This record gives sequence, C-alpha cells and structure tokens, in this order.
Amino acid sequence: MRIIGIDPGVAITGYGVVDEVKGSFLRVASGCIRTNQKLPPATRLEQIFHRIRALIGDFKPQAIALEKLFFNKNTRTALQVGEARGIVILAAALNKVDLFEYTPLQVKQAVAGYGRAEKDQVQRMVKLLLQLPQQPAVDDEADALAVALCHLQHRRWNDAVRRGGGRP
Amino acid sequence: MRIIGIDPGVAITGYGVVDEVKGSFLRVASGCIRTNQKLPPATRLEQIFHRIRALIGDFKPQAIALEKLFFNKNTRTALQVGEARGIVILAAALNKVDLFEYTPLQVKQAVAGYGRAEKDQVQRMVKLLLQLPQQPAVDDEADALAVALCHLQHRRWNDAVRRGGGRP
Repeated sequence: MRIIGIDPGVAITGYGVVDEVKGSFLRVASGCIRTNQKLPPATRLEQIFHRIRALIGDFKPQAIALEKLFFNKNTRTALQVGEARGIVILAAALNKVDLFEYTPLQVKQAVAGYGRAEKDQVQRMVKLLLQLPQQPAVDDEADALAVALCHLQHRRWNDAVRRGGGRP
Repeated sequence: MRIIGIDPGVAITGYGVVDEVKGSFLRVASGCIRTNQKLPPATRLEQIFHRIRALIGDFKPQAIALEKLFFNKNTRTALQVGEARGIVILAAALNKVDLFEYTPLQVKQAVAGYGRAEKDQVQRMVKLLLQLPQQPAVDDEADALAVALCHLQHRRWNDAVRRGGGRP
C-alpha cells in the first residue's frame, strides 16, 4: 500500500511517499516542490502540475492524501492555496488516483493520537512512526508525510472496524 | 484579435469569447460550464479543465482574461474559487495562451467607464458594447464577457499610449 501525502502551496508544495509494509510505515521519498516567485503564476502552477504528475508516474501510489484546509484569516492566501490545491486534485484525477482529504484535527488525531497536538508533537511522531534519522527540515514536507500517515492509519481503523474490532 | 474572458467557479464557470474586428467588439460565443455538485470535487475540476481546454482548442484565442478576485468574507469560498482558478490558469499555460488578470475596479472602469459602477450598469454596458439582443441571463457569463471586453479596452488604451495619444 503506497500513499503520497501532499501539502499544496504555490511557493512550496510538500510531498511524502509512504509505504505500509507488513504493518510498518516506511518513507520512500519526501521533499518539496519549490517554484520561483519571479515567474508568472501560470508558469508556477504548470511546474507544480508537471512535478506532481511525475511523482505519480514515478511512484504509482494507490491514493493521494491532502489536508482539508480552513483559513480564518487571509482570504488572499486561501485563494492562492486553492489554486495550488486545484492543480494537485486535477493531477490526481487525470492520473486516476483516488484522492482523500483529512481535516487538521483528523491528521493530528491519527498521527499524534490527540486532536489538539502541537505542530512539533506531530512532527516528532512523524519522525518516530517513519523511523527517520531526523525531523524533516521543512514544515511542508513534514505535513505531507503526516497526512500520508493519517490516511494509512484511517485505513487500518476502517479495516479493524470491518473485522468487528472497533476503533482503538 | 480574439479573447476568452473567464469567470471561474467550481459550480459555474462563465466564459465569453469576444473578437475585436475593425474597432468593434463581437460576441462569438458565451455561456457557462456547470458541474454537478453530487460529483466528487476532483471530477468537477477535471470537467472544468477539459471544457476550458476544448474552448481554447475550438476558438484559438490570442489571450485569456480573468478577474483578479478579492474576498473579504468567506475563506472557504476563496479556497474553492482558487481551485477552479488554478485549473483555468493551468489550462491556459498548457495551451500556451497568454493570461491577463484585471481587478474588479479595472473591469468596471473599462466597461462602464466608472470604477464604482453597479453590477447592473456593467451588464447593460456589456449588452450595448457587444450589441446583444438581451443581457446574459447568468451573472457568470456576463462577468466573463466583461473581463474579455476589459482586456480589449486595455489593449486599445495601451496602443493609444504607444502612438503618443495618452489615455482617454
């Protein structure tokens, strides 16, 4: 089972490719797609589009996981993030990869076991669950890995429920 | 000179194809791309993407004009509109069509001659400038035609400035 978690943004899009192998989580690849702010917005979105499609082509994930965002401040930022999100969602659809979205609460709950966990707690759990030598240097990369883990965790819970176990 | 004006939205994307022929503006086509809200967001964005690319392929515009949006209320809406905008911007980039963005103020100024014009004034001017039998029934279609006209008007002004005329 392979998932790509993505944290979309026009300047930086984080991604994390995570496998579940025999009950363990393994980071296959992760990083950031950066676009140059001197380029026209259309060029930047096009670069993100091609990079995401290349990631899907290279890693052939079973699903893509995104964080469902809620902004309560800057609508200008929301509009820009929306543009990058639209590109990622489209790339998934064109490549016929299922897309799943999780709220920040769900991501924290699934990764840190606690919906109000601090960002740093989540990142430490990402490091722990994936047995990384160190925490990812960039937040966007860590967030992408976290949402990928969230999806895998949710699948586990759903499987457990189906088997009659109930949620932990 | 042919322009497609677009007013992007996930539920309704308005479009207007406008030619400038010997100083007159002519509506070639206009309408709305509607997506079914029962479909997954990814499918809706994919439909918009394919329809926009088909419009570009069919009408071969020299440029695409979009309204630059500012929201001061709902960030959720901003995020959704951003997703649709991202799709349109990407479609333009992939088809190598230049993209121009105008603020609502610029659109009103260019079409109605007055930056604080009411929506209805702008729509009446769209009807007049394009010699339409009646105002477009849907706002999104009228807005798309308005931003196309805005781009053509700006080109005229820029041409006049280049010829040493100065803005009207």
